[in-house]
Formats: sequence, structure tokens, C-alpha cells
Amino acid sequence: MNMAKRLAAEFLGTFWLVLGGCGSAVLAAKFGGDGNPLGIGFVGVALAFGLTVLTGAYAFGHVSGAHFNPAVTVGLFAGGRFPARDVVPYILAQVVGGVLAAWILLHIASGAPGFAIDGSQAGAFASNGYGALSPGGYSVAAAFLCEVVLTAMFLVVIMGATHGRAPAGFAPLAIGLALTLIHLISIPVTNTSVNPARSTAVAVFAGSGALSQLWLFWLAPLLGGVIGGIVYKWIGAEPRPG
Amino acid sequence: MNMAKRLAAEFLGTFWLVLGGCGSAVLAAKFGGDGNPLGIGFVGVALAFGLTVLTGAYAFGHVSGAHFNPAVTVGLFAGGRFPARDVVPYILAQVVGGVLAAWILLHIASGAPGFAIDGSQAGAFASNGYGALSPGGYSVAAAFLCEVVLTAMFLVVIMGATHGRAPAGFAPLAIGLALTLIHLISIPVTNTSVNPARSTAVAVFAGSGALSQLWLFWLAPLLGGVIGGIVYKWIGAEPRPG
Amino acid sequence: MNMAKRLAAEFLGTFWLVLGGCGSAVLAAKFGGDGNPLGIGFVGVALAFGLTVLTGAYAFGHVSGAHFNPAVTVGLFAGGRFPARDVVPYILAQVVGGVLAAWILLHIASGAPGFAIDGSQAGAFASNGYGALSPGGYSVAAAFLCEVVLTAMFLVVIMGATHGRAPAGFAPLAIGLALTLIHLISIPVTNTSVNPARSTAVAVFAGSGALSQLWLFWLAPLLGGVIGGIVYKWIGAEPRPG
Amino acid sequence: MNMAKRLAAEFLGTFWLVLGGCGSAVLAAKFGGDGNPLGIGFVGVALAFGLTVLTGAYAFGHVSGAHFNPAVTVGLFAGGRFPARDVVPYILAQVVGGVLAAWILLHIASGAPGFAIDGSQAGAFASNGYGALSPGGYSVAAAFLCEVVLTAMFLVVIMGATHGRAPAGFAPLAIGLALTLIHLISIPVTNTSVNPARSTAVAVFAGSGALSQLWLFWLAPLLGGVIGGIVYKWIGAEPRPG
Repeated sequence: MNMAKRLAAEFLGTFWLVLGGCGSAVLAAKFGGDGNPLGIGFVGVALAFGLTVLTGAYAFGHVSGAHFNPAVTVGLFAGGRFPARDVVPYILAQVVGGVLAAWILLHIASGAPGFAIDGSQAGAFASNGYGALSPGGYSVAAAFLCEVVLTAMFLVVIMGATHGRAPAGFAPLAIGLALTLIHLISIPVTNTSVNPARSTAVAVFAGSGALSQLWLFWLAPLLGGVIGGIVYKWIGAEPRPG
Repeated sequence: MNMAKRLAAEFLGTFWLVLGGCGSAVLAAKFGGDGNPLGIGFVGVALAFGLTVLTGAYAFGHVSGAHFNPAVTVGLFAGGRFPARDVVPYILAQVVGGVLAAWILLHIASGAPGFAIDGSQAGAFASNGYGALSPGGYSVAAAFLCEVVLTAMFLVVIMGATHGRAPAGFAPLAIGLALTLIHLISIPVTNTSVNPARSTAVAVFAGSGALSQLWLFWLAPLLGGVIGGIVYKWIGAEPRPG
Repeated sequence: MNMAKRLAAEFLGTFWLVLGGCGSAVLAAKFGGDGNPLGIGFVGVALAFGLTVLTGAYAFGHVSGAHFNPAVTVGLFAGGRFPARDVVPYILAQVVGGVLAAWILLHIASGAPGFAIDGSQAGAFASNGYGALSPGGYSVAAAFLCEVVLTAMFLVVIMGATHGRAPAGFAPLAIGLALTLIHLISIPVTNTSVNPARSTAVAVFAGSGALSQLWLFWLAPLLGGVIGGIVYKWIGAEPRPG
Repeated sequence: MNMAKRLAAEFLGTFWLVLGGCGSAVLAAKFGGDGNPLGIGFVGVALAFGLTVLTGAYAFGHVSGAHFNPAVTVGLFAGGRFPARDVVPYILAQVVGGVLAAWILLHIASGAPGFAIDGSQAGAFASNGYGALSPGGYSVAAAFLCEVVLTAMFLVVIMGATHGRAPAGFAPLAIGLALTLIHLISIPVTNTSVNPARSTAVAVFAGSGALSQLWLFWLAPLLGGVIGGIVYKWIGAEPRPG
């Protein structure tokens, strides 16, 4: 595939991830107000994030590899699966695609009566945060540990499910549902990032609080991605070619 | 396959989509009344819509291609995957199958004590709407934008997951779950259409309000479908035959 | 496979269907009492029923065909996919497996303080019912229509997903999730049967009300199964061998 | 694969199972307090446990076989699928991986204001229990029966879905979703173990009550695993080589 199409795929895939994942959180998670079980809650948001990757990876996996996430791109580079020269273009396409999705989401959300973003609230416009901006009030240390460990395991699953000896065709299913799982665990902690492009996309619109905490949602996922990539590189290495 | 069997498959598949998707919304979403978590809520309805397409596409994909949706048929035509001469017969079979399902659903729903359709309520008989008939009160502009963008991405996933280089056999899974994802995002906005046959089927029984807004649920999904088909046609095109 | 192993597979598979589907309904659906969202609700029960078939069909499909349901056995016979001489043994194995599961479920459920079966309540011990024994109070006509149509579509999905031209290996996924879908639609109507063995298994323990209504949950699913089998037989028939 | 990599895979897979399954229970199940439907509830926890195994098995199945559970290891040995000499090393790697995950989970959870483990409460720190420590107050006999039967059926599904005549590649899907199903049924009874490593991992931190009941969550799953392994060994045995 030529680079323009690969970057278009990363752009659209990350667009889909932010529109679907953050969109479900902003529009549908708390529908009807507190205590109303019609809304999709954290289970629905977790499912939505995972399904953006599952569906996007079946649609674009054969074009770009379907990263949709700078931590995945960097982790696959660390794991020996992705060339250094493509890392920066991929990350740029991901961030731009995510920001466009957040901008469209803002226009849809603004069509509801009374919509407003209160950047002092945890999870405002689906932003990630720690401390006062963590949904459950988790400390910066807990948030950092959580994002590192979950991104590392995300990369382990990605590297493993795309390994040459794993069953062919199932990787998008496994990887998408891994992202659902990660959200089921950690929405209360950081509103779940494991993806700097996703965090950046909504922080741009969520206000100064989210922007001031954005460093963690680049640093921790990238660190976790590198760890996961290196760990699986050792586990999955064949003793001899075959 | 001969055309009669292909149209029967589109008829039955759209019947299943409306019976299952709209049926779950009408019969089960709010079971037990406001605040009762026994009912399936938006998560259950989103799952049901997606599973009608997932199961219908495994059952009928090899017969008709499993569109079950005029926006899919038109989008695949725009994307160069479907012949012009079959577009109108497919759409007719879809609308008739959907209307029959809504008619049967009405008979089942009418068997409960106190059942009535109040067409002035948003989402009456699972109808789609904007403004006063949007579940969350979203404006016509937000509804239009939402339906266009989501249908476009639906077509992107459909075109991508059925591409010759995508893993074989997984397309119904990806496409069905894409429809689940779309519902997780947008039930609050328009009660989610992305499918003019589905909107028409229930509008026939939901009263004059739904019928008067039906134009949007033909125009926006068809426009989105065409955009998605054209976008993916470029991304997925091979530089040279192979 | 020899008949003893095939019948053992049908026995164990139906055991699993009743233990898992009815078990989740009895033990977990309303955990914590009315209004408590910790319980799994109808979404969880729908998922559980579907997953019994999905997992059972991957485990036993290659042994017995994984019917686990007299309506499936009869529908596949009507559709030309199953020999007449095996119909009665299969049904017997299914009913006995289901009853054993209900008996074990009763012993587990009885270990909770205050457990009792009140057969005058709709859905007692996960039983199926209409009228006063329908969860939503649906009439006998609505219940009959609902069970016929949903079982017919269940057979259509089963026949289609196991068709020689459908993607290989995905049938258990499609069929299991079709059963989830069917429950998402119809638990409020009849507590969802589409399976006479499942209805019989719990009716034995649920009291005279459930037993007196059991005729419907044999008649309607079997009729629906035959209709679905015949309809798909025509749609799926190849014009000529190839 | 060499033994070090196989044990690393079992270690990491069980780490993932405990971090994801118990993590979702501790961090997200009851988010927002009693009656708040934002939290993921038992459905979310059931999904999380299953997805740890689904994703872990796609990532590690080709390395270690992806047991992640002493009852699976022992059951596969009983079923003739696993060599005796590897049983103890596998179990040790599983327990150590699980305990490390629980230790990390404790550090994340401790980052929330007011976090504390009250070992006198059922399900404290996601521990398993019976009697006063059963979420629904189930007796020791009910708990034992439940764990034996569900672990036996878990092994039946594992043996069946990995049988040479089952569809290739789908086993992780079937096995992971079987674990989701098992949780949908039995969280109210024992908080669901079917896995001695998972029970041990959190009991270490949950206090003396959980530790004093740990015997059941080794004995019952191991017994069930052996039963399931032997039952399927007979069902799945080919009459003659082929």
C-alpha cells in the first residue's frame, strides 16, 4: 500500500475510535440523568470503544495495520514489528483524525438543549484525568500505574494475536475486545486512555484542566506500549526460523 | 443466485432487522417502567440491532450480499460493488420486509394490557426523529450531521470488511457489530436510523409526526452511504491488479 | 459418530442450555432486589442463553450437530437436513438433559436463605408463560405469534449459517447470538422459549401453572421450526449442483 | 516452545485474568454507589473475566495452550491432553502471576479516597466465598455443587472447542465466552471462582475469612475439572484413528 492510503486509514480509523468511543460517552452514557438505567453506562462505553477498533481493524487492517493509537505504533516499533521511519507520520495522522472526530462530536452534542462542557468536572467531554479530574478521584500515581500496566498488556495482546502462529483473521476481534476489557477495568480511574491521540482529541475541547494533565496520557501509554512490545518480543520469538 | 431468491433474502433479512431491532426497543427496552434495570435499555437495543445484521448476514450473505438497508445498497453501488439495475428491486424488497415486520410487531405488542402508540412522544413505536421527536431533543442539524457521518462510516466498515484482502468470513461479525456501535452512539440523537427501510417500516404505524420527519431518514443515510462508498473505494483500490 | 455419543452430546448441551440460561435468570437476574443494577437483568439472561449455545456448539457441533432443542431438530428435519429416524431419540436426550439441569439448579438455588418458587408469579423458576404468567402480561395470541415467528427466524438463521456456502466455522457464533437476540426481544412476552425442552425442564419444578401452559411452548416452537426449515430450504437450494 | 516461555505465558495470562476480572469487580462494578447504573455490575464483571481469557488465549494459545487456571491444567491432564510432568510448574506460574496482579490491583485501588478492604464483607477485594461470604448468602453445599458443575462444563467446552474436528481458531472465543457465561450464572453464589489461582490471588489480600474458605475454591474446581476432562475424553474419542 502507498503511504497516502495508509495514513488515510489511520486517520479514519482514529476518527472512528474517537467518534464512537468518546461519542458514546458524551451522548449516551448518562442518558436520562442520574440513576436512569436506559443510558449505556460504563459497559456501553467500554463496548463502544472496543467495537471501534474491532470494526476499524477489519476494515483497515489490510491497509495500514490498524493502529489508531500512538502507543500501539510506538509499542510495535519497540517490538520489532514497525519501521522507525513511519512512526511520526502515523502518529500525526492519528492525532488529526481524532481531533476532527472530537470537533464533529462537539457539533452533534451542541444540538441538544442545555449542552455545555464543564471542564472542572471529571470526564468532561470524555476527557481523561487524574486526581480531581479522575471519575473516581484516583491519585496521579494510581492513574500512571494503571495506564502503564494496561497499555503494556494491550500491546502484549496485539503482538500475540498478530503473531504468525496465532489463528489467522481473529486479531481484530481479540484486539478490539481487549480495549473493551481495558475500559471495563479502568474508566473509574482515568476515564481510560491507553491512547494519547484519543486523550489529545477531546482535551483540545475540554478545557485547561484536561490539557494540563495531558502529559500523563502521552507518557504512561507510550511507556506501557514500549514495555509490552519488548516483553512479547521475547515471549513470541521463535527459537529458530520456521 | 436467481433474483427471486436474492430478493427473498433481502426481504427476510430486513424483516429480521426491524422485528429484532425495533422489537427489542418496543417490547423490552423499558420493561418494568422508569428506573427499572431489568429492562434492556439502550445497550440491549444496540446489541439487538447489531445481532439482526450479524446473524442475518451469516444466513443470507451468500444469497443476496445481506444489505437489508437502502443506504447500504446505494452506498455499495457508489463504491462500485453493486450493479445499478438491482438497486431499486433491492430497496423495494427491504421496505416491504421491514413494513411486514413492523405490522407483526404491532400485533405482538398489542397483546399487552394498556399498549398504545403515542406519536407525539420521541421514539414512539421505535420511530426515528429530530427536534421534539429526538429522544434527547437534538436539533435537525445535529440529527442530519449524525446520520450522515455514521452511515458514511458504516459503509466504510462494510466496504473494508468485505474487501478481497480482509480476513474471509469475518465481515458479518464486523458489520453487525458496527451497527451495534452506531446505536451505542446515537440512540439519544435520532433513535438511530442509518437505514431508511427501518425508519419507514415503523413510521407507517407511529403516526404523522414520524412520517413528516421521514425525509431526513432517507436523505441523510443515502447521502452518508454514497460518501462512505466513494471514500473507501479510493482507500481500498489496489495500485495494480494482484 | 455413534449414536450413544451423539445423544450424550445432545444431553449435555441441553443440560448446559438450561443450567446456564435458566440458571442466570433464577440466580442472577434480579440480584439485590428491585431496582438494583448489580443484577444482570434481561440483557444478562439473553447473553447467557446465547452463550450456552455458542459454547455448546463449538464443543459438540462436530459430535451431534448441536441442536439442544426439539424445535431445531424438527425444523432441520423439515428442512431436509436431518433424518426422521433420529428425531425422537434426539428429543428425548434433550428433555432429559434439560430436566437434570433444572434439578441441579433447584439444589443450588435452594442454598440461598429464603429461596422459594411461587408458581403463581410470571417467570417463576425461569418458566415460560402467557396471560397471567407472561412477564409483561401478554395474551395467549401474542405469545403464540411471538414464539412461532421467532422460532421460524431461528431456524432460518441456523439453516443459513450452516449452509455449504456460508463461511465455515462461524455457525455456532451466529446461532448462539441469534438466541441472544431472540431473548432481547421476547423475554417480556413469554419469558422466551423457542425451545420445548427448556420450557419442560423448568415447568416440572415451577408448579401447575407452568405445566398447564406447556402445550403452547411445544406447539408454537415446533410449528415455527417447521416453517423456518421449509422457508430456508427453498431460499438456500442451489439451482443446480456446484 | 521452551518451558521458560510457556511459563511466562501462563504467568502473564493469569496476571491478565486476575487484573482484568478482579480489577473490574473491585474498581468498576459498583461505581457511584448503590443503585447507580453507571457501574458495570455483574454483567460487566462477567464480560471482563471472559475477555481476559479470550484475549489472552489469542495472544498466548500458541505459546502455552493458554490455561491460566490450575483446574484447566489438571482437567486437561485428566482428559489426556496435557503431560503430568508439566502440571506443577504450570500451576506455580499461574498462582504467582495471579498474586502479582492482585498486588498491583491493590496499589491502583488504594489510590482512591477512602479505599479499604473489609474482609468481613462478601466479595471483599473480589474474593470468593460461601455462607456469610457468599454474595447471596449461599450455603457451603450449594457453593460446592455450583463450582464443581460449572468447572466440569468449562472443561467440557475447552476439550470440545480444541478438539481436532472443531472449527480451527475459534477455541479462544468459545472458551472466553464460556467463562463469561459461568460468571453470569454464579457470581451471586460464590462470586465465581472455577479457578483456584484467581481465588488464591485475591484471598492473600482479602483477609482471614477468604483464606479460611480457600480450600473449597481449590477442591471443587479441581474436582470439576477432572470430571469434565474425563467426560469429554469419552465423548470426543474417535472410534478409530482418522
